[in-house]
Amino acid sequence: MSLLVTGSIGIDTVKTPYGVSEDCLGGSSVYFSMAASFFAPVRFVGVIGPDCPFDLAEVFAGRDVDLMGLEVREQSKTFRWTGTYSDNMDDRRTDYIELNVLAEAPPDVPEAYRDSKYVFLANTTPGLQMQLLEQVQGPDFVAADTMDCWIKDDLDDLKKLLGKIDCLILNDGEARMLADDYNLIKAAEKILGMGPGVVIIKKGESGSMICRAGGERFILPAYPADEVKDPTGAGDSFAGGFMGYLAETCKTDFASLKTAVAYGTVVASFTISDFSLEGLTSISKGDIDGRLETLREVTSF
Amino acid sequence: MSLLVTGSIGIDTVKTPYGVSEDCLGGSSVYFSMAASFFAPVRFVGVIGPDCPFDLAEVFAGRDVDLMGLEVREQSKTFRWTGTYSDNMDDRRTDYIELNVLAEAPPDVPEAYRDSKYVFLANTTPGLQMQLLEQVQGPDFVAADTMDCWIKDDLDDLKKLLGKIDCLILNDGEARMLADDYNLIKAAEKILGMGPGVVIIKKGESGSMICRAGGERFILPAYPADEVKDPTGAGDSFAGGFMGYLAETCKTDFASLKTAVAYGTVVASFTISDFSLEGLTSISKGDIDGRLETLREVTSF
Repeated sequence: MSLLVTGSIGIDTVKTPYGVSEDCLGGSSVYFSMAASFFAPVRFVGVIGPDCPFDLAEVFAGRDVDLMGLEVREQSKTFRWTGTYSDNMDDRRTDYIELNVLAEAPPDVPEAYRDSKYVFLANTTPGLQMQLLEQVQGPDFVAADTMDCWIKDDLDDLKKLLGKIDCLILNDGEARMLADDYNLIKAAEKILGMGPGVVIIKKGESGSMICRAGGERFILPAYPADEVKDPTGAGDSFAGGFMGYLAETCKTDFASLKTAVAYGTVVASFTISDFSLEGLTSISKGDIDGRLETLREVTSF
Repeated sequence: MSLLVTGSIGIDTVKTPYGVSEDCLGGSSVYFSMAASFFAPVRFVGVIGPDCPFDLAEVFAGRDVDLMGLEVREQSKTFRWTGTYSDNMDDRRTDYIELNVLAEAPPDVPEAYRDSKYVFLANTTPGLQMQLLEQVQGPDFVAADTMDCWIKDDLDDLKKLLGKIDCLILNDGEARMLADDYNLIKAAEKILGMGPGVVIIKKGESGSMICRAGGERFILPAYPADEVKDPTGAGDSFAGGFMGYLAETCKTDFASLKTAVAYGTVVASFTISDFSLEGLTSISKGDIDGRLETLREVTSF
């Protein structure tokens, strides 16, 4: 089934205890698309400036990622981000950011994409997410990411968005902030009360939890990775594996959502094993399925 | 099979955002025994002073907990602890502590207990844990708890102890400190290299992980508890459920260790649902089995 992603394309410089990766390709829609393309064809919407040194057609060569929605905005510049991860790899600091195209109008969703049935709105202002969503007609399942600054500064828009989507994906700190409850089970229930039928809370190395209205819950640890080189893109890869699996199977019943979360978990484990997209570009679908079986084994009793 | 526990008996005053419980019964061996007694008969070893206001025979009435190893030391006083939990229930502060009997010689293990096959050495100095263990002849499976201060100040003794036990149970911060590695998978492997065949790392609301020499791993989320009133005793209840199940089944193969960790997880979820021992004394084995099935359901895909 058709899967649309809208999000950022970035030039990242990342410092971790394992090294530095300078001016490498990043951005939410890039990680998402690379992850989702193992499962389903992806329709990619995003903007770069003419300064972007990466040829995305080459980056995605051999993968089913449609770049018709990629806009090169002549008078603008590509989003840039520089960040440093602490020794524990959990905390990261933004050293430098240039929003550039991200501070401007969102891209148009191409006419040919407007019938997309599965939609992922990567993290940006809730107002922009809404504008992008309004360009899609009758989607079956819409998921969105958000972050602390929109919860703090854009809560009204975010609440409007929550009434329009099927699934919110956010991390534990953001869930606590949005629900104003430290207990994650209660926080998830409160967020379900704000509109989406499904909430996924990501807890980094402690895994993730999915709650659906009506009391269904699924809790999954992270894949037991003994090698973490660069956590950048983990969340978007998780979302990519999750949405990719749903779009592939055309199902959103709870059993499918559970398997989708497991695929997201596994795909993210490859992302963090190396810098930039290296961990994702060097693997096959068979590697992903192998880790899925390992994850099933180490979590069942 | 016979299950021996050595540990503390305390008079606790606990403050949490849900209330204050003053001068209530606590202590590692008390929580452990209450939890383990749902599964197997428990042999209890510990010391109190004549000031102890609790009649342990009454506390454990109707449960298979043998108190022959309970010593009332006439010239001494019972251990006292006062602590406050922060709003998030994860962090706690010790406001006041009186070691009293815990700073003295350990109790004798009664002659009739020395053939115990399953042994749990609750947290105390590694030197004392060793002295207690030396009084047991040919146990099948010995588990011990430890904490940050012994890792910092008593590392030589702790390393000697690690060569004598089958299983170390500790929390994530302690594991990172002992192994000098932030990654918990690597930390577990390093601790296995110090002697015990099994390491269990507890991660609070993020669950626990068990690793066995040879690469076997099991990772389990915490039970999804929406009501946490008092986390005191969670770790000892976890150990009680874990060791109780092993002693009940007389098995320590990896499948049994996994189920034992799941039982420990579930029993701890009852402990934290109320103050002191209330959460454990108000339930039946059927309630425990019910939550075990729920835990299986919410973690399988």
